[in-house]
Amino acid sequence: MKLFLHPLNTGTHLGGWRHPDAHAGSLYDFGYFKRMALKAEAAKFDAVFFADEPGYRPIGTRQAFGSMDVGKLEPTALLAALAAVTERIGLIATMSTSFNEPYNIARKFATIDHLSQGRAGWNAVTSTTDEEARNFNLGKLPAHDERYRRAAECVDVVKSLWDSWEDDAFVRDKAAGLYSRPEKLHALGHTGEFFSTEGPLNVGRPPQGHPLLVQAGGSEPGRALGARTADAIFVGYPPLAAAQAYYADMKRRVLEAGREPDALKIMVSLQVLVARTEDEARAQKAMLDALTPLPVALAWTELMLGGFDLSPYPLDGPLPAVPETASGQTARQSLVDLAARDHLTVRQLAQHVAATRGGSGALVGSPAQVADAMELYFREGAADGFVIAPAWLPGGFDDFVELVVPELRRRGLFRHDYEGTTLRENMGLRRPSNRFVDDPALGHEPRIWRR
Amino acid sequence: MKLFLHPLNTGTHLGGWRHPDAHAGSLYDFGYFKRMALKAEAAKFDAVFFADEPGYRPIGTRQAFGSMDVGKLEPTALLAALAAVTERIGLIATMSTSFNEPYNIARKFATIDHLSQGRAGWNAVTSTTDEEARNFNLGKLPAHDERYRRAAECVDVVKSLWDSWEDDAFVRDKAAGLYSRPEKLHALGHTGEFFSTEGPLNVGRPPQGHPLLVQAGGSEPGRALGARTADAIFVGYPPLAAAQAYYADMKRRVLEAGREPDALKIMVSLQVLVARTEDEARAQKAMLDALTPLPVALAWTELMLGGFDLSPYPLDGPLPAVPETASGQTARQSLVDLAARDHLTVRQLAQHVAATRGGSGALVGSPAQVADAMELYFREGAADGFVIAPAWLPGGFDDFVELVVPELRRRGLFRHDYEGTTLRENMGLRRPSNRFVDDPALGHEPRIWRR
Repeated sequence: MKLFLHPLNTGTHLGGWRHPDAHAGSLYDFGYFKRMALKAEAAKFDAVFFADEPGYRPIGTRQAFGSMDVGKLEPTALLAALAAVTERIGLIATMSTSFNEPYNIARKFATIDHLSQGRAGWNAVTSTTDEEARNFNLGKLPAHDERYRRAAECVDVVKSLWDSWEDDAFVRDKAAGLYSRPEKLHALGHTGEFFSTEGPLNVGRPPQGHPLLVQAGGSEPGRALGARTADAIFVGYPPLAAAQAYYADMKRRVLEAGREPDALKIMVSLQVLVARTEDEARAQKAMLDALTPLPVALAWTELMLGGFDLSPYPLDGPLPAVPETASGQTARQSLVDLAARDHLTVRQLAQHVAATRGGSGALVGSPAQVADAMELYFREGAADGFVIAPAWLPGGFDDFVELVVPELRRRGLFRHDYEGTTLRENMGLRRPSNRFVDDPALGHEPRIWRR
Repeated sequence: MKLFLHPLNTGTHLGGWRHPDAHAGSLYDFGYFKRMALKAEAAKFDAVFFADEPGYRPIGTRQAFGSMDVGKLEPTALLAALAAVTERIGLIATMSTSFNEPYNIARKFATIDHLSQGRAGWNAVTSTTDEEARNFNLGKLPAHDERYRRAAECVDVVKSLWDSWEDDAFVRDKAAGLYSRPEKLHALGHTGEFFSTEGPLNVGRPPQGHPLLVQAGGSEPGRALGARTADAIFVGYPPLAAAQAYYADMKRRVLEAGREPDALKIMVSLQVLVARTEDEARAQKAMLDALTPLPVALAWTELMLGGFDLSPYPLDGPLPAVPETASGQTARQSLVDLAARDHLTVRQLAQHVAATRGGSGALVGSPAQVADAMELYFREGAADGFVIAPAWLPGGFDDFVELVVPELRRRGLFRHDYEGTTLRENMGLRRPSNRFVDDPALGHEPRIWRR
């Protein structure tokens, strides 16, 4: 199975930062992230992943508690810095298709792929908050469909730009005075609904051909885009039957898109808290729950429900009907479904959100219990791999590496060493061909000065 | 005096890459840039600087010679990677105000400042080519004035965003459950001609308060913006009297803007080729000239003249009148002035452009000659420091470090060790105060969710 580390701030649990052994320093401290990336590399994780949103969600500012959540390093710069101090682990970050130009995205990840010699990955998302939109000349977020149309066009342009140079374009023959072969350089000349991008990219083809393309989202346009273009897709941690249905649906869509089903890896996100025994893990969980004030948990819950106001409703009553909004449909629906299925009160749902930061499920238990749950999803057609988001950091990840990884290895589920040198090789994914080589009718010679 | 290294590709001279000892590998090789940054750090340079343009100028593609010029790593990612492997040297890169949103720019350089613990610098430029504009939904470049209005607004918004968090906003008191103080967080609520940016930034205040702000440009709006906002400004290498006039004009403008004249450092760009003797340096220069085909030099000259077609004019006749265009006014005018002053033919101007990549002057000579020229400008009120752009790399920079730096030290002109730990400290520049602290009427509390 494939494993990514998702080191979210000081841990996924909202109270994680108050754990006595949690990182007590700044979230702007590179050393903190470097130590975790090196730990994940030593454990042979496929990649480390950093989520992102280009805005500030002032959740809980009045409580001054939750604001730790949104101040942190810009993740593509963090990836570049980690590229310089790691050797084998993949480096994946989110960069929004909603507020960035494809030319800038393509350059950024092509460069990180070069810096890391083939270990970069881009998590292409549509942004989901008005707070972000207001930082980018918009009063509010565009509609869901429009954001997905923009995302689809953006991904296509980025992939084309990565193909600007053929792999063997650079000759660097000093004697002959031939630095590169002009016939191996291709402009794009793209004009679409959202972008007009002439190209070519001013960065040579990435070592992986294309950096790994990751996506998320369970909505119809999200699934369609992922099936057509993604190398890996993030999904929450739904019950087994729902996870199997999603897995089967995505693999079918991939096949229909003319790709091998194995060309898209389904990565299930796990909020994990593991200890030597189940009792010990549950005690840690209870401690973190107690460290999270209820108003903070409620504020997060409202956020995950699209800004829905819970204050009129009794804390120990059921979750009322929550209307659809433009943002984050998948996340909101999974909480609504969970509350209905498990008959959660508003308070219980808030406690769940606090423990998982709005994710769809958490795994708390002994090493065998955690490995059992992972093995079940992996063997039963629900997951190709997992995104491990420890409840608290860095110790919560140390526990996973020391307790769960050996158990996975004993069961033959996880590697003892890297299979390849690039992220694609380790993920078992082929290196993409160049679309301008595949179809010489595409693109054109870059417009040139007279001589 | 202050010294920056500007390692342009494999050297400033167009023929530099064909030097027998020039870097023969890829310009996507991080090790190449890492070795140079470490060399500059060992020599106690203030900073390493990477120019940039988000586009491809297909100069000389037909000759396949000059295309080495525009394929390289995206420089802010390169800075982040260098931050992880250096300790004291400043890290400066260009990021265009024409095709980036201030929110993205502010995040990027705030993050690099954190990654490097206070060594980041942003060279804020207006882009100058239609090739770039065509990658960003524009058919051609906006007019000069419009680009400068956008740049001025962009710089102002970026600086405000850097002040979003007060320096002591983060408390991280686990026992009290107090992570940060909400009253020390400020949204901007900016609405201007080009940008609508709510803020706050989701990155804490940079270690330097504001990363170093660098600019270039000798046009009237360029000078006005630099005098009002820049910490350092790049200028070409004009004759002494012109350099003194520019220096005096800028210091006067800085004073008029209510700042100390010393708060803006004038950095003169030098294309340098130094050897043990003048003869040896001239022989190296002649070799590089001979390695540069005339059509390539002519194509570059046309580019620097704003796309002016030189083909109708005799190579050994004078430069004809060149009309103004929207782009790169300062660079074009300096070439026109140079040709008039020195009575250069078209061929001679092209050879000059080839040697300097369109810069306004080159320094070729013995260590004492190079040091003399630098000392003259430094002592006679024409420069606070220099941007050293070696003719070829990496050996051309090794020569500068080994031959010129000791000579500058003997003359008491250059440091033996760093004075401080941040780039601002080494540059002798104060740490900016926070505008929201200075004027509590500015900004507002971030819009918050109900709780």
